[in-house]
Amino acid sequence: MNHAPRGRPIDAVVSFSDIQAAATRIAPCAHRTPVMSSETLDALAGRKLFFKCENLQKVGAFKFRGACNAVMKLTDQQARSGVVTHSSGNHAQALALAARLRGIPAFIVMPRTSSAVKVRAVEGYGGRITLCEPNQASREGAAARLARETGATLIPPYDHPDIIAGQGTAALELLQDVPGLDAIIAPIGGGGLISGTCIAAHGVRASIRVIAAEPAGADDAARSLQSKTLLAQDSPSTIADGLLTGMSELTWSIVRAHVERVVTVSESRIVEAMRLVWERMKLIIEPSSAVALAAALSDEVRALSNLDRVGVIFSGGNVDLDKLPW
Amino acid sequence: MNHAPRGRPIDAVVSFSDIQAAATRIAPCAHRTPVMSSETLDALAGRKLFFKCENLQKVGAFKFRGACNAVMKLTDQQARSGVVTHSSGNHAQALALAARLRGIPAFIVMPRTSSAVKVRAVEGYGGRITLCEPNQASREGAAARLARETGATLIPPYDHPDIIAGQGTAALELLQDVPGLDAIIAPIGGGGLISGTCIAAHGVRASIRVIAAEPAGADDAARSLQSKTLLAQDSPSTIADGLLTGMSELTWSIVRAHVERVVTVSESRIVEAMRLVWERMKLIIEPSSAVALAAALSDEVRALSNLDRVGVIFSGGNVDLDKLPW
Repeated sequence: MNHAPRGRPIDAVVSFSDIQAAATRIAPCAHRTPVMSSETLDALAGRKLFFKCENLQKVGAFKFRGACNAVMKLTDQQARSGVVTHSSGNHAQALALAARLRGIPAFIVMPRTSSAVKVRAVEGYGGRITLCEPNQASREGAAARLARETGATLIPPYDHPDIIAGQGTAALELLQDVPGLDAIIAPIGGGGLISGTCIAAHGVRASIRVIAAEPAGADDAARSLQSKTLLAQDSPSTIADGLLTGMSELTWSIVRAHVERVVTVSESRIVEAMRLVWERMKLIIEPSSAVALAAALSDEVRALSNLDRVGVIFSGGNVDLDKLPW
Repeated sequence: MNHAPRGRPIDAVVSFSDIQAAATRIAPCAHRTPVMSSETLDALAGRKLFFKCENLQKVGAFKFRGACNAVMKLTDQQARSGVVTHSSGNHAQALALAARLRGIPAFIVMPRTSSAVKVRAVEGYGGRITLCEPNQASREGAAARLARETGATLIPPYDHPDIIAGQGTAALELLQDVPGLDAIIAPIGGGGLISGTCIAAHGVRASIRVIAAEPAGADDAARSLQSKTLLAQDSPSTIADGLLTGMSELTWSIVRAHVERVVTVSESRIVEAMRLVWERMKLIIEPSSAVALAAALSDEVRALSNLDRVGVIFSGGNVDLDKLPW
């Protein structure tokens, strides 16, 4: 796994041309998702919003972009032995599907406590599942053991330049489809999506402002940016289950250099924003996506000037329809 | 209100050029909705499906097309006195919004029993509401009285050439965006959408097959086509609340001449299809839309040959998120 060496320019780790190359690489496999808008939400935000609909991406989340880029970039020799990761979420499905499209095995370590629905989804994409104890040491241990035994390449969910470059293709497409954006708002968890977004946006135009959106109940990024030090995620509690992770040194180095601010939003605002999109845009988004809209509708962001046209990344749409938060 | 004189060619009432003119007329106001697809649903249907997303239309339903066409086609003198209708559903909102866009009053008669949500929605679009007793005589009486008193033009929900021409623009756009469709499936209630779809499709190419989809619990169209006589809707019972109405002489005359078959689907298939779209396509569709997909997935339609590429019209996306059918 790569980490950003301190003091080294970020472009040396993930550059704009890496994102452009990723866009070409994943184009045959990934959806070019639509950009949607809503006059109702524009009125609430006080400006024009442009929503990049990664909920309509394959496996229902932007995660497919990074996984696809990483898998397709392997040499034939590397690819032959397959890929491995530990994840109970969208990355597991994304990697399984990307591997299937390349015709190679994907070994997925999932905690024993994963819901049957999630296990079935990964199996549905052809992932070979190894169950482990539900703790970080057991997950990492099982993945490392599988990598040793099979020769498979470890593809982590966000702490990897190829993953970040892949995630950056969402913002690249958004900026191609909607020229002249003043800012982009994306949710922040491990930081893969926001990192790719930063490098894509600032590769297109240095003046594009990048705002990270975070649940107040998992506000490590906000605290990190405030203290200018990478702080750990500390017993997070939020409905936005895609944003429970903390940043890595790599994603933090990019966030620190590129992100203007981290806007935190309450649980009730997240649910409100999610329901607004379901009702007014007729789109199913998951709570993590709603975090970005809740930030766009917050007093803090509404008070910012010179933001006429703002992109918002809807990161995914995977929700359990039997357990809705209203 | 116009009725199709028996024996007279249908083109004399609503022609393909009426639909082309409607498309030009509503273009500045209506969304050109996207066409979406899903490999999962293609696999279930056994062929390629192309979904025309009228759930993403203004007011969340195709109804805006017809209302907009009718309102924008009024002469300035007619328009000055406004428009009137009786409706508790999507047509009421559609007409209110179309009238507001033209800057004229919309008088909407709604039964006293209408839900507060629906009344507020119509008010939100600027509609002037008159409540009446919840029966057909009271609704029609109140609308006729308002028309007399105000000089407003009555715009019915489906039994009108301008409404049918407007609804036909959805299929026209679908056929422009996806050339070479073998068939189009659309839900049937009062018959406005399917009538416009027929005339648009057969104006583009006479060989395009048009299939109507109907809840088994409201199967007047299926029975009518079978008996070659317009039969009344008889105590309908279905979750697809947009399809409770029966056809008029006008829509029946078009359906009889153009529709290949009416496929009926059970309530459980409707709910299943609705959930499939929510889960796999991340789109919110209402039960009436799901009726069209359920027909596409039915054994009856799957058994039809020479249907490689089929358009499906998602008619709307207005659902009460607090009362989901699962």
